[in-house]
Amino acid sequence: MTLNSTFTKELEVVENLIKKDLNKENIISGLYKYIFKSSGKKMRARLSLISSSIFKHKDRYKLAAIIELLHTATLVHDDVVDNSPTRRGNKSVNSIWTNSHGVLIGDYIYSKAFILMVEIGNKKILKELANATNDISQGELIQLDAINNIDITLNKLKKISYYKTGRLFEASAKTGALLSKINKSYIDNITECAKNLGILFQIKDDLLDYSKNMGLGKPSFQDLREGKVTYPFFFAFKNASLEDQKKLKGFLGTKKLNEKKAKSLIDDLSGIKKTQQLAEKYHIKTIECAKRIKNKSVCKEMIELANVAINREK
Amino acid sequence: MTLNSTFTKELEVVENLIKKDLNKENIISGLYKYIFKSSGKKMRARLSLISSSIFKHKDRYKLAAIIELLHTATLVHDDVVDNSPTRRGNKSVNSIWTNSHGVLIGDYIYSKAFILMVEIGNKKILKELANATNDISQGELIQLDAINNIDITLNKLKKISYYKTGRLFEASAKTGALLSKINKSYIDNITECAKNLGILFQIKDDLLDYSKNMGLGKPSFQDLREGKVTYPFFFAFKNASLEDQKKLKGFLGTKKLNEKKAKSLIDDLSGIKKTQQLAEKYHIKTIECAKRIKNKSVCKEMIELANVAINREK
Repeated sequence: MTLNSTFTKELEVVENLIKKDLNKENIISGLYKYIFKSSGKKMRARLSLISSSIFKHKDRYKLAAIIELLHTATLVHDDVVDNSPTRRGNKSVNSIWTNSHGVLIGDYIYSKAFILMVEIGNKKILKELANATNDISQGELIQLDAINNIDITLNKLKKISYYKTGRLFEASAKTGALLSKINKSYIDNITECAKNLGILFQIKDDLLDYSKNMGLGKPSFQDLREGKVTYPFFFAFKNASLEDQKKLKGFLGTKKLNEKKAKSLIDDLSGIKKTQQLAEKYHIKTIECAKRIKNKSVCKEMIELANVAINREK
Repeated sequence: MTLNSTFTKELEVVENLIKKDLNKENIISGLYKYIFKSSGKKMRARLSLISSSIFKHKDRYKLAAIIELLHTATLVHDDVVDNSPTRRGNKSVNSIWTNSHGVLIGDYIYSKAFILMVEIGNKKILKELANATNDISQGELIQLDAINNIDITLNKLKKISYYKTGRLFEASAKTGALLSKINKSYIDNITECAKNLGILFQIKDDLLDYSKNMGLGKPSFQDLREGKVTYPFFFAFKNASLEDQKKLKGFLGTKKLNEKKAKSLIDDLSGIKKTQQLAEKYHIKTIECAKRIKNKSVCKEMIELANVAINREK
């Protein structure tokens, strides 16, 4: 399964647009270049391009760049929040420079995205993206509150996956569609589809953290070490005897984690299996929504993304 | 010298608008309430109200609230950056909760400001505020780069004062005037006046850090301890013999600072006096610009703010 090369080529245009920022201050241009040196999957920017592909508005590359900037700003801040040493296989900003640099260059990238949004000047797009960035910060804050919290509910976990990840997927597709000024049913269908895709993406992310895979560019069992209760832990805990619950609690937030023991217990208690089932549920949902999109080419792309999301190994 | 009570009353309306945020998540509402519990001077929001006072547009309280939200978001992030234990005499968010909470609630407040901006929907205002927030982050980044940097130039220090502080003062006045749709000369004059006022405000802030005054709500000599080269240190260093330069370098970035010795040397080398002269220069500039504002009442208010800024002891 490979991603459509038309959009991959378009993403290069988007990347060049992003890289065009030429700040005169060395400290700023140095940080900025470092951050955008390694290019990620750009799933959200791709989604934006797919959604805006029906009617090729002159600002669709700029909009995709905005989406990528917003996403990158949240990643840079996330790395500060998680005290993460790496990002996409490279050292994180906070580990090469300091947390302060991470906070401030994140703010710089955020506000740069807003400057570009204002240039596009579409009020509905501005509204959606302002709301989405606010929701993302809410998702992250709720997740902070969920650290070492074994009493977290499934609903709260779902809210985290939606706000933290689904929300920007949703906004990427919605604003792409809004730019194209296609009919309401197109906007609604692709928005709903992208929302489910984003949630699927986050569930898969939670799963990948429990499977040793260095290709992800971050150490495995990071969530567990940080005390983050995600789906695999949650389902295992629900299913555990008092004795096993005690063991699980012992794993949560431990820097010196016995990965093998933790993995095996969570596996035995169906934590992985149930998370996979949840991922499959969202995969089906995404495909169902995709099929409601009347434009055949966009429909096909969205199904492709859903398949990529569920099958990804990194 | 007291501030105009009409605007002080209006600021209460602004404060209530800000406090109306009722997030259902306890973690978010808890942080938000804590941050806005203690009200600061609200100089920027006052400036916004003064500037928009000629024609009373329905959104002028909302605009002033946006300004205060943007300012507060930068303060919350600043406290993370500076690892500051206090803010306005209370413990900082990062010291009660964690740096992560500071980063994320800062993002929440930023994006909330953007949501409100989009509601007002004035493109020129959106553009000015998006640019201003970007410039503020630049000012902070340049300042990071200036830490323990004795080779910093006066021009760079001026850029820091302008971007870090002058820029939001400028934007507060400009957007207030833009909302009122008064003529171009009013917009230009109050914008220029507010910019100089903001720079004056920052110079005075640098000075106050060198005068033991607990009322400021933060420990004194904080800049020196953090290795921040600000005006008093800069001027003293320029004026120092090689031997004294060596002593000054020894003070920079030292946690165990001999405050008395540092203060006395910087004083002897005219660091304080020259910074006061610079403040006076900006005080005069601010008043000159204020006098160009044709509306008598606004002109008077701006002169009043300039006098408050230069005379403030905290």
